[in-house]
Amino acid sequence: MEAVLTRTLEELATSGLEGLSVERIARSAKVNKTSVYRRWPTREALVAAALEGVLEGMAAQVPDTGSLEGDLLGLLEPVAALLGQPLGRAVLRAAMAESSASSVAALAARKLEDQARSPVRAMIARAKARGEWRVGVNGQLVLGALVGAVIHRAMLEHAPLSKRWLRSLVDFSLHGVSASRRRLKN
Amino acid sequence: MEAVLTRTLEELATSGLEGLSVERIARSAKVNKTSVYRRWPTREALVAAALEGVLEGMAAQVPDTGSLEGDLLGLLEPVAALLGQPLGRAVLRAAMAESSASSVAALAARKLEDQARSPVRAMIARAKARGEWRVGVNGQLVLGALVGAVIHRAMLEHAPLSKRWLRSLVDFSLHGVSASRRRLKN
Repeated sequence: MEAVLTRTLEELATSGLEGLSVERIARSAKVNKTSVYRRWPTREALVAAALEGVLEGMAAQVPDTGSLEGDLLGLLEPVAALLGQPLGRAVLRAAMAESSASSVAALAARKLEDQARSPVRAMIARAKARGEWRVGVNGQLVLGALVGAVIHRAMLEHAPLSKRWLRSLVDFSLHGVSASRRRLKN
Repeated sequence: MEAVLTRTLEELATSGLEGLSVERIARSAKVNKTSVYRRWPTREALVAAALEGVLEGMAAQVPDTGSLEGDLLGLLEPVAALLGQPLGRAVLRAAMAESSASSVAALAARKLEDQARSPVRAMIARAKARGEWRVGVNGQLVLGALVGAVIHRAMLEHAPLSKRWLRSLVDFSLHGVSASRRRLKN
């Protein structure tokens, strides 16, 4: 049944969520349609399962490299790798859908958030212990800005997500734009 | 014909790009279908014109507030206002589409970029003149991260884009995460 989930992601990439056909997926995965429906009773359940598979693989990877810079790079590289492919962009588009997919999108987003929470918290705790994380800076805000920057570049600028660009992004997130001396609040 | 463009955006919000019907748009705007086709020969041209209208209204607004912090807030507020509405999210989704909409998306994205380039450059030049912009920090990267953060929060976190949150985002972009003293490269 693994082939069914892969095919579902591929269908998502080519036809989008609206055009997704369970029948076509079953056929190309060489599985009986009724077997698919037995396991995933609705199209939404099938897409949710396929998305979960992708998101699970991603969220587990928050490496402990010994520096915040290294950890952030390690966190962003799989995101960039995913959004560098049409398949990954299709997954993101499905997660951002508003209409009929809202339940799927909500489920996938919550799942990813749940899974990322603990390793990201651990990453931030390590950074704080090393004195690399300014008190009062919100982790979710920083992560949202980093992942959002990757999304913006991949989906709107259509520019390459090179390692060099990722390094510039992480550097910006660590040190900011301002040339004036930072007023530390802590 | 202004009503046609408004209806087009509304159709985009409810039916998506794939489900968009020129006939339905003309009918609800109380305009003859042939008049619509005379002005915008293709569905793509119509959507492009509607998107341009929205994007033009946005890009013009880069205020000169006297500080980079104020300018960035002024730049982000209309983006947040747009993505706080289903209509704005629909526009963004259309711009992010990959398949049949690629020409429209590319056109809209290029248009926005062209229009934003000059005021954003002026904003950065003012910040540099005041010593608020660290040499070597890429403007496009910063803008992408800021707009990307707003996109991430609106489309994936489904969290409110409050003025308070925008202030935290701008503060992060100015000063970064790191608590260690910034190594100035200039």
